[in-house]
Amino acid sequence: MKVLVLGGDGFCGWPTALHLSARGWDVTIVDNLSRRNIDNELEIQSLTPIRTMGERIAAWQELTGRTIGFVNMTVGKEFDRLVSLLKDERPDSIVHFAEQRAAPYSMKSARHKLYTVDNNLNATHHLLAAMVESGSDAHLAHLGTMGVYGYGTAGLKIPEGYLTVTVDTDNGPCRQEILFPANPGSIYHMTKTQDALLFQFYARNDGVRITDLHQGIVWGAQTEETRKDERLINRFDYDGDYGTVLNRFLMQAAVGYSLTVHGTGGQTRAFIHIQDTVRCIELALNNPPAPGDRVKILNQMTESRRVRDLAAMVAQMTGAVVETVANPRQEADENELVVANDQFRDLGLSPITLAEGLMQDVTGIARRYADRADLSKIACVSAWNAKRAEAVEAAKPAAPARTADVTPIRAVVA
Amino acid sequence: MKVLVLGGDGFCGWPTALHLSARGWDVTIVDNLSRRNIDNELEIQSLTPIRTMGERIAAWQELTGRTIGFVNMTVGKEFDRLVSLLKDERPDSIVHFAEQRAAPYSMKSARHKLYTVDNNLNATHHLLAAMVESGSDAHLAHLGTMGVYGYGTAGLKIPEGYLTVTVDTDNGPCRQEILFPANPGSIYHMTKTQDALLFQFYARNDGVRITDLHQGIVWGAQTEETRKDERLINRFDYDGDYGTVLNRFLMQAAVGYSLTVHGTGGQTRAFIHIQDTVRCIELALNNPPAPGDRVKILNQMTESRRVRDLAAMVAQMTGAVVETVANPRQEADENELVVANDQFRDLGLSPITLAEGLMQDVTGIARRYADRADLSKIACVSAWNAKRAEAVEAAKPAAPARTADVTPIRAVVA
Repeated sequence: MKVLVLGGDGFCGWPTALHLSARGWDVTIVDNLSRRNIDNELEIQSLTPIRTMGERIAAWQELTGRTIGFVNMTVGKEFDRLVSLLKDERPDSIVHFAEQRAAPYSMKSARHKLYTVDNNLNATHHLLAAMVESGSDAHLAHLGTMGVYGYGTAGLKIPEGYLTVTVDTDNGPCRQEILFPANPGSIYHMTKTQDALLFQFYARNDGVRITDLHQGIVWGAQTEETRKDERLINRFDYDGDYGTVLNRFLMQAAVGYSLTVHGTGGQTRAFIHIQDTVRCIELALNNPPAPGDRVKILNQMTESRRVRDLAAMVAQMTGAVVETVANPRQEADENELVVANDQFRDLGLSPITLAEGLMQDVTGIARRYADRADLSKIACVSAWNAKRAEAVEAAKPAAPARTADVTPIRAVVA
Repeated sequence: MKVLVLGGDGFCGWPTALHLSARGWDVTIVDNLSRRNIDNELEIQSLTPIRTMGERIAAWQELTGRTIGFVNMTVGKEFDRLVSLLKDERPDSIVHFAEQRAAPYSMKSARHKLYTVDNNLNATHHLLAAMVESGSDAHLAHLGTMGVYGYGTAGLKIPEGYLTVTVDTDNGPCRQEILFPANPGSIYHMTKTQDALLFQFYARNDGVRITDLHQGIVWGAQTEETRKDERLINRFDYDGDYGTVLNRFLMQAAVGYSLTVHGTGGQTRAFIHIQDTVRCIELALNNPPAPGDRVKILNQMTESRRVRDLAAMVAQMTGAVVETVANPRQEADENELVVANDQFRDLGLSPITLAEGLMQDVTGIARRYADRADLSKIACVSAWNAKRAEAVEAAKPAAPARTADVTPIRAVVA
């Protein structure tokens, strides 16, 4: 079985490529290395010493005998090359990670907003149009986000993509299943709601088989495969733009800084471990929608947690102090979030929970590579609008103070 | 009061610019002349001899003493120029027509799909980001389409943008008002549903005041102002890509051809006369949402008609014959469409009806300029997908036959 992994150099893409290759898929990565280029722009680097794509692939072949292909291409800008690639490779499946994926980066400035919309929308649309143009019947699995839902209605368990509603009509109440009304919290999240409209259209008009994975916030860094050899190591982002909340807390704890919680920390979010991410993608590829089916939507998350509870959990494990800072995001201070994930449960997913897995590999990574960290980059400085920027500015110093009496990382896991 | 009319060289944009100028607005048109360039690509021209922008503006000044500004700019590609323009002009209102607006053109080929998404999404997003970047507090009125709704539910009167639904929750039934679930019928229509998500986000995150006008199919060609002098004449499209259904019927009748109805002609569509379009835009500009309001959505249409009924009406007036051809569009053969337009009614709109206005100016135009017509361009040849393309091909000759015993245009209106 042949699979293209678009965005296969990134945080989720690289471990996905290895996971699928290890399970016998013939993998070709398509990536323009934009994530590495953004590191250059932001003057930051992965905490982990990620290798070049050439070295990664060579190491994988040396260790396993398996070949992974690599095409350096900007999906969304090189349509003819993309069509040729689909015609030449005839993939059975395509995994689409080829989008700018950080909400704070998408809100940094007008230029970053424009880049995110242009990059993400054109990537998704070029891919769909190229599939039709090339006559591909591949199954497309797209990495979306839980953020398309917004934060819902009290008492409503967030369903998987579609919501049953009752509409009053002249003929009486009418029950309908609709795409869950979008309520994105950033330009990045908004692009995923726009992607969803592209998927609905191409599934209906052209019969493209599509699975959209509404993923929670990913934590952890390593998977079974990336752990095999340091040359395969996954990227680990801890900066205010690309670092996800939990990984930033663990990094802050590792270097003996206080954990910076935005506002009340009452935001409830959905989470998933990177190892479960790659398992979910494999499950999704092995269970595609049938021809003619509507877009299949799965919630790719394993548990919901309030941010302040996560901070407390990390503080308890590490002895770090929790500090409250002004929230740069335009969002509610507090929200509930209960999410259905029955489909992946039914497919056999047995998740790694925060309670049991929190300290594994992450603290190991944070400690091992702490000397590579630029601590000035941990604070979230991208404000959602002028009002939030003022609030953050007024509350400075937002940079977390060193908490002198904290011993970095008390809980040590091999 | 200062207004920018983005896309002010087009079919709706030009008469809007004149209408607002005549009523005392200080108008600047922003346009990259893309509609004229697409005429070059399609090897077609407006039936009416439209003048260059320079001649149009000079004629208007000569006739009325009023000045209209013109900036040749691609909204969506020249962000810094757009920000500078907003800072320099400080418009009170912005009317946004700067999008590719033909569904058949958007479905012509992969390249046309890519162009439409890239052009329309970036135009709308650059505009919104530039408004925030420049600190503009202008009211933005956007030309959307009735096509965002799809064709609804039996017994449901299409509301204006928002739909009240009941959702079952653990706390019992919960009534909510949501953005009407999108169901676009072409790539073009889909871009307008993606625009809607941009509007929702920027209104909520940045407080941008936005009115989205969900317009029906426009018929007619001239307004009070474009009729004043031939140098001000509006464009009239009769080709299979840009000609709207009613204008194509009138053109077919004018030259003695049969009226080509797609499939059963059972598609019900919403219509509005171009004169009412410009009136509605003026009403919308004079009644902006308040700061902090949600996006204001108005249905800019005045009546719904079934396509075969329109053909019968034109046939009765002109003696033309109605002919059925394979439908190149992926759509239902028959649909109902009942639409609320209370907001414009309440603002005093008194519409021109098809029954009273059908033959005015349109047949005049069709007759006067018939010698400029390229009859080979009337048929709709852009198929929505491979299956529809096959059906159209199998049913050829799709080009309407000349109906010899029909006298072109029996009803003559001055």
